[in-house]
Amino acid sequence: MNARRKAARAQILRAAADLFRERGYQASTVDHIAARLGMSKASLYTHFRAKEEMLAAISRETIEAFTRDLSLVLGSRLGPEDKLRRVVRQHVQFVIANRSFLTVFFGEEANLPSRFVRSLAAQKDRYDKGVERIVLEGIRGGVFRDVPPRLVVFGVLGMVNWVHKWYNPDGRWGAEEISGAFLSLIEGGLLRQRRRGAALSGRLRRLERELHEVARQLDA
Amino acid sequence: MNARRKAARAQILRAAADLFRERGYQASTVDHIAARLGMSKASLYTHFRAKEEMLAAISRETIEAFTRDLSLVLGSRLGPEDKLRRVVRQHVQFVIANRSFLTVFFGEEANLPSRFVRSLAAQKDRYDKGVERIVLEGIRGGVFRDVPPRLVVFGVLGMVNWVHKWYNPDGRWGAEEISGAFLSLIEGGLLRQRRRGAALSGRLRRLERELHEVARQLDA
Repeated sequence: MNARRKAARAQILRAAADLFRERGYQASTVDHIAARLGMSKASLYTHFRAKEEMLAAISRETIEAFTRDLSLVLGSRLGPEDKLRRVVRQHVQFVIANRSFLTVFFGEEANLPSRFVRSLAAQKDRYDKGVERIVLEGIRGGVFRDVPPRLVVFGVLGMVNWVHKWYNPDGRWGAEEISGAFLSLIEGGLLRQRRRGAALSGRLRRLERELHEVARQLDA
Repeated sequence: MNARRKAARAQILRAAADLFRERGYQASTVDHIAARLGMSKASLYTHFRAKEEMLAAISRETIEAFTRDLSLVLGSRLGPEDKLRRVVRQHVQFVIANRSFLTVFFGEEANLPSRFVRSLAAQKDRYDKGVERIVLEGIRGGVFRDVPPRLVVFGVLGMVNWVHKWYNPDGRWGAEEISGAFLSLIEGGLLRQRRRGAALSGRLRRLERELHEVARQLDA
């Protein structure tokens, strides 16, 4: 595919995804997409033979982008802490930059051909397992606490995937603020570390009293 | 509405939600719903005049259930820590028990009448603000760390809402395990508290060396 054809294809998919997001897939037609692009239906058909093909292409390109980003992280020499940080940052960035793709990817599965749904489910599962490897590596290395890794993955991906539902491009937060707040929550949690601190400081207070008693006897 | 009519209505909405989840809203018809219930279309129409009414009722009942549960928590005398715990637990429970409702609620907004979309958005916003009040109360009271409260809410609700996407009723986790793992992550975070611990234990080691020196001089 030459560069110009590739660019036209990407433009079509973006217009289709925007339309599917706004109107829903079923209510959108190839005519609408062509009209939005100011393109004839005939030349649109040289790229995609049907609306179904556009939907499948949007889903395929989304999971492939996620998978590509993740495998770069998994192949790096970073520690599990930095790997997880990078996954969260790039995931949030991708979701924000491709909101329509993500809305279609997560919302229109019922309209995909069943054969494709199965291969998509397998790819998603591989993605989840890749993130899970990072969490497992962190638990085994003593960097992360021992929380069920699969549920950690579902929790973290829930936070970052959900961004496509509430993100407002005119709002006050960009990708950096969002992933910063999420990472702060994921890494450090919301609770101030009072409990554990209180237990240890109790033991220190007892030692302090004993030292005080020693000092008193030395003075005497 | 008498009890029998109420039960029939609830049964219809459940069948409609299941169907919308499996086939998508657009591809489902009133005929399909009636067939699934073994009910005549005529008697179905005594409850709902159109498919659109069922969709609106599913969305309305979902947000009303969330709002009711939350206002009980907000009106309680619990501390912010326990309030947040209860919100997470009951939210996960509700999502698991009403997976079809949630899939329709989150996935078929494009098919709702626009007037209803606005009032639904306002109700959702009130719900988010209610959870935000709990987070703010915790931050002001020094129980929670100072992470941007609105982003904490989006993060936490993302985790729990996302459950409807991956939850498997035949899987290994129930509501208790899921909310337990999420709460452990939300409250304590994933990182072991090594950093802060390391700094404090360094100071203790220095004190220990001084005490050792005092003991040595007492011996001499």
